[in-house]
Amino acid sequence: MKYKKTAPIGVFDSGVGGLTVAREIMRNLPHEKIVYFGDTARVPYGSKSKETILRYSRQIVRFLQTQEVKAIVVACNTASALALETISEEIDIPIIGVVKPGAKVAAQTTRNKKIGLIGTRATVKSDLYRKTIQAENPEIEVIGQPCPLFVPLVEEGWLKDSVTIEVAKRYLAPLLEKDIDTLILGCTHYPLLRSTLKTLVGDGVTLVNPAYETAKELQRLLKEQGMENEIHTDEEFPYRFFVSDEEECFQEFANSILPYNVKRTEQINIEEF
Amino acid sequence: MKYKKTAPIGVFDSGVGGLTVAREIMRNLPHEKIVYFGDTARVPYGSKSKETILRYSRQIVRFLQTQEVKAIVVACNTASALALETISEEIDIPIIGVVKPGAKVAAQTTRNKKIGLIGTRATVKSDLYRKTIQAENPEIEVIGQPCPLFVPLVEEGWLKDSVTIEVAKRYLAPLLEKDIDTLILGCTHYPLLRSTLKTLVGDGVTLVNPAYETAKELQRLLKEQGMENEIHTDEEFPYRFFVSDEEECFQEFANSILPYNVKRTEQINIEEF
Repeated sequence: MKYKKTAPIGVFDSGVGGLTVAREIMRNLPHEKIVYFGDTARVPYGSKSKETILRYSRQIVRFLQTQEVKAIVVACNTASALALETISEEIDIPIIGVVKPGAKVAAQTTRNKKIGLIGTRATVKSDLYRKTIQAENPEIEVIGQPCPLFVPLVEEGWLKDSVTIEVAKRYLAPLLEKDIDTLILGCTHYPLLRSTLKTLVGDGVTLVNPAYETAKELQRLLKEQGMENEIHTDEEFPYRFFVSDEEECFQEFANSILPYNVKRTEQINIEEF
Repeated sequence: MKYKKTAPIGVFDSGVGGLTVAREIMRNLPHEKIVYFGDTARVPYGSKSKETILRYSRQIVRFLQTQEVKAIVVACNTASALALETISEEIDIPIIGVVKPGAKVAAQTTRNKKIGLIGTRATVKSDLYRKTIQAENPEIEVIGQPCPLFVPLVEEGWLKDSVTIEVAKRYLAPLLEKDIDTLILGCTHYPLLRSTLKTLVGDGVTLVNPAYETAKELQRLLKEQGMENEIHTDEEFPYRFFVSDEEECFQEFANSILPYNVKRTEQINIEEF
């Protein structure tokens, strides 16, 4: 085994959104240490090309490897959809994304075989959710809907605002018309809109949160490979946070959503990796 | 003189927004050639730190200098507010931004000495508009309002949409309550919302478009320094476009707003400059 069981898990995202994945890992794998990287100097990824996302993701993976992580979680739907497959062939530690765990659970959840997918333009366009779902069951139809306004609305803090409800109604209408019974929250910011979206889609539609499913997948993977950290850490900082832009804004957002008080975030120049 | 009069003008922005400035240069200085750079791989700048904006702007200026431009226009309010002053001391060709020309005209326009400023968080926070306006007349009050949802709304194409009107009403309310008579469109995307904003603020408020004022300032500067291109170019491509991410999306947007058919855009790796 290359790394110790006590080594941290590397988690990265284009910015703050991946904190919803880190949050699920903290809740479900409380013994694991985390090194989180948010690419706040180049956020967002959702409107950028595959080639650019791959270049950025490789730089981040190189940085995380300097932190001697034992596994990496790509906590960004766009990077999971566009860069994960290539990178997993280039490194020798386990790496998982948020797309496949979410897609698999959605495939198991739907009864009428109609799944809605909301996410960034890049995630929806990449088609990885559809391919993964149809590998489970080729009869399932996946209806994708890019929702480019959701991230800025979340970052504005308008989680239950009338504007957000109106925008969500408009984005969800084509999905509801197609009679979906399962909706994948295909962007890490979207779990923060969960209650607004739930009200709009009603009880007939099950929401799938890939962040939660990814934490469960990570747990299975670590167990399978005998890499779980069995010792409860008494380190003062079991969770370390790095960003590519200023620490300040990140830390504020982090503290508003994590079950952990982030006291320190470090800025690094990711272009050097 | 370092460069020929026939050399192009370098124009840069974080993405597509600066095309509203390029458009004004094309209209008002039809003899000038342009090299445009849009940093689409790292867009937007408005939520990022001064240090990051400065690093990015320096890379772009280095790239533009390889294109032997005779002058540079920083067609991005955020970069104008955060990076221009430093960079102008580091290079030996004229460089102007969009903030000062817009601020000066706003100071000359207001009668009741109350100016509203809308822009990104970084632009409003930078305080350069207020400082420039108060250097003209210290009695003028400048009321700033960040509008982080406007850029994604413009990019979604919802220019006159009910959602955009509702968001605009909310952002403008504190400015109208303060009885402003002049409103600076302090982000290069905002001229595309001009008619929506004009309807909401009414005839009592004059809109100032820094893109137009910047083209006029450039004209004065070139004339003053004897650097105007007097020969009408018959080059096939008087306007050249470069981006840091894929060409496709950029070109579509460019063709929707420019009085010129953009046939080719080149992608470069800006991190190498």
